Amino acid sequence: MLKINDTICAPATSGRGAIAVIRLSGQDCLTICEKVFFPANLNANLIDQKGYTILYGEIRSESELIDDVILSVFKAPHSYTGENSIEISCHGSPYIQQKIMELLINNGAVAAQPGEFTRRAFLNGKIDLSQAEAVADLIASESKAAHRIAINQMRGAFSDEISILRAELLHFASLIELELDFGEEDVEFANRAELKEIVNKAISMAGRLSNSFSLGNIIKNGVPVAIVGNPNTGKSTLLNALLREEKAIVSEIPGTTRDVIEDTIIIDGVQYRFIDTAGLRDTNDIIENLGIRKTYEKIGQSLVVLLITDINDEIDVISKIIKDIRNQIVEKTTKLIVLVNKIDANVIEKQNEIQSQVILGHNEKLLFISAKKETGLDELKKILGEVIEKDKILSDSIIITNIRHYESLVKVTESLTRVKIGMNNGLPSDLIAVDLRHAIQFLGEISGEITSDEILGNIFKNFCIGK
Amino acid sequence: MLKINDTICAPATSGRGAIAVIRLSGQDCLTICEKVFFPANLNANLIDQKGYTILYGEIRSESELIDDVILSVFKAPHSYTGENSIEISCHGSPYIQQKIMELLINNGAVAAQPGEFTRRAFLNGKIDLSQAEAVADLIASESKAAHRIAINQMRGAFSDEISILRAELLHFASLIELELDFGEEDVEFANRAELKEIVNKAISMAGRLSNSFSLGNIIKNGVPVAIVGNPNTGKSTLLNALLREEKAIVSEIPGTTRDVIEDTIIIDGVQYRFIDTAGLRDTNDIIENLGIRKTYEKIGQSLVVLLITDINDEIDVISKIIKDIRNQIVEKTTKLIVLVNKIDANVIEKQNEIQSQVILGHNEKLLFISAKKETGLDELKKILGEVIEKDKILSDSIIITNIRHYESLVKVTESLTRVKIGMNNGLPSDLIAVDLRHAIQFLGEISGEITSDEILGNIFKNFCIGK
Repeated sequence: MLKINDTICAPATSGRGAIAVIRLSGQDCLTICEKVFFPANLNANLIDQKGYTILYGEIRSESELIDDVILSVFKAPHSYTGENSIEISCHGSPYIQQKIMELLINNGAVAAQPGEFTRRAFLNGKIDLSQAEAVADLIASESKAAHRIAINQMRGAFSDEISILRAELLHFASLIELELDFGEEDVEFANRAELKEIVNKAISMAGRLSNSFSLGNIIKNGVPVAIVGNPNTGKSTLLNALLREEKAIVSEIPGTTRDVIEDTIIIDGVQYRFIDTAGLRDTNDIIENLGIRKTYEKIGQSLVVLLITDINDEIDVISKIIKDIRNQIVEKTTKLIVLVNKIDANVIEKQNEIQSQVILGHNEKLLFISAKKETGLDELKKILGEVIEKDKILSDSIIITNIRHYESLVKVTESLTRVKIGMNNGLPSDLIAVDLRHAIQFLGEISGEITSDEILGNIFKNFCIGK
Repeated sequence: MLKINDTICAPATSGRGAIAVIRLSGQDCLTICEKVFFPANLNANLIDQKGYTILYGEIRSESELIDDVILSVFKAPHSYTGENSIEISCHGSPYIQQKIMELLINNGAVAAQPGEFTRRAFLNGKIDLSQAEAVADLIASESKAAHRIAINQMRGAFSDEISILRAELLHFASLIELELDFGEEDVEFANRAELKEIVNKAISMAGRLSNSFSLGNIIKNGVPVAIVGNPNTGKSTLLNALLREEKAIVSEIPGTTRDVIEDTIIIDGVQYRFIDTAGLRDTNDIIENLGIRKTYEKIGQSLVVLLITDINDEIDVISKIIKDIRNQIVEKTTKLIVLVNKIDANVIEKQNEIQSQVILGHNEKLLFISAKKETGLDELKKILGEVIEKDKILSDSIIITNIRHYESLVKVTESLTRVKIGMNNGLPSDLIAVDLRHAIQFLGEISGEITSDEILGNIFKNFCIGK
């Protein structure tokens, strides 16, 4: 761990764009930059420069000109870290970035560790720990849904709920502890009815938040959708058609073009993880076939199963595969969407026939599409949005995505449940106070009011350099 | 081609770093940003904001918060493009970048084409064409040598030489044309002796610059070094040892880690392109063997041949392979470095024996190394630097790297040579004036004083987006 009085530096942009940004933070960043930066305006003086201003000039290493740069100056406490900070915008050449980093380090700066800037923002009280964690999620966010959760968390919506809860519990804990000081006198400062109400509210809030974790996890990693179907039913045509529209949007931004093999597609703001499965053709041959078993495993892990069939197949064949797949779905929450592909104007009778003969269950939908002609895709997107309850995902309700928060919230619920049971059973106040203090501590761990170097180390090691 | 009164926008950083920068340029960039940016300081007003200042605030799309951002404001003409410009620093999430780009475009900005910002800097007279071209080279520069050429060119060292030359020739061309106006009177405004001197100076300067192109090309693409040797002499151990030191430096900067397979290594500021060749073991078997022929082809394309031998081999074997390789070197400029690998304390006698029996030619060096123990590598780097005349590469003399400049300079030389011959042969002034005007035009094409949309299109299409 670096000392807080070190001045840190790191590249904050990745790869080789037109521009690269190198940032510094710490008490010495102005004096360090003054040694290597020479303003174009000879009257300008970096040390006297006001915060929120920009200087143009040269970075030089002795007589060697390294680059023409733009320096953005931030003065403590009005910066991301709360310290004096400088951002150097240079040309995005690897050589220039390397050279500037070397120069800064040779003049007293220290190469920042991953997440070091955000860690300082936390240590300097600019943000709490859950907000710091949201910064990494925000940078990683690829879909509207993931972005919304991260930015709400970064802006403190989650922290606020936790803080209010913690303050209320703290208030009661203090009153109860005061009672204990007056132990002999049998006073009651803490209104037990009110406390019960607060505890109930807290339990339900912690429960609601920890329950949101599975949804949060899905949003962060993508909704798992298993694609099942016999070979040549048009799986890859469908995936490419869904992918095409998205690609047109993201390809504007360098470095974000996605690999088709990944099959991760964002539809209407939600990321889906399409899990391609082995064909099912051999089912009747060797039931224990490894590929098939894997397909069924993947069905088990998915929230949605997309079964692709071919309208040219016999209805018996279609019905049979629907039945086979339906039998493999064990989770009650898994939805099955049956796609009848390769439709055309001339098969309208067959469509009607299928519609009338295939009987769907509660969690099942049937849709006629042509992946090739891109017919029915909007309807498919709409149905996908419905079955995963997209509105809930895109609502402003607080959803947690972080396993650390989840584990703390589960412990909060356990402690408060003990408080509740204890109160109902008339347990002595000192025992209730212990559980109450535990709950308060677990809440404090989420926001970072109670923390350790180890916890901080674990959180920030997964950050990128320069954040 | 976009209209110059469009306001353009583009991401200026690549990939997903901690920070991403989106830049705008054009007369409307303040009013466009005002619609989507909400300063944290409610008293701040983007429209009234002075140049070279920073605002902190939110980018919002209707009620949806997209990100907390930093806005850097530049006012015309004090910006890179010479126009009003804004740089938005946001979190490096693909979703956020895409959303901000969408917002800007929906509010009247146009997505910039590759190189559009630099093209505007040229069109607005901030830089000339060869300086604009240097910007792309600067961003691509990976070695000290490539960086030095690009930054000198960007700062105008090359443009200055061309301009001075052009001005002098223009002066004489005007005088000669004035004489032609007085055709009947046989006056001589242009001093022929002075003109001859200028033309000679210009021919030698254009020749020097165009001759520097092959060196410039080598610096830009890496010095080609063929590595030859029997299998198991330690080729890859040597490459890895050379690569290791470099890697430690570049791995600090995300996105720049190099693929070992590329075998591009920067040593002491110069980039080398190590071309691995097939083994030579089969030489005696089938002389027409395709692999061997390819090896010899690669030797032909290289500036340096590194022949790796094993000290444990018989001196006859070592001598024979040296002779074989020497016979394959056709270019007089190609240097041969014979490495005797796997040395150890106990082989000092054998070293002396080899040293005395192997007779080296003019362009040849012999060096004892141990790639595994990393003995002799510093000496090898020194020798590499010597044989490629590193000092010349790293000097401040102007080196051209651009084939467009090279072609123009060759035409300048041709035209001026015709001027010179014409003057020596007493050709009439009007014919001399035509060639002089041609030379002036070709010089003007380099700096962009004379240009066309087609030339500009060709130059900027190879730029990255956002520059």
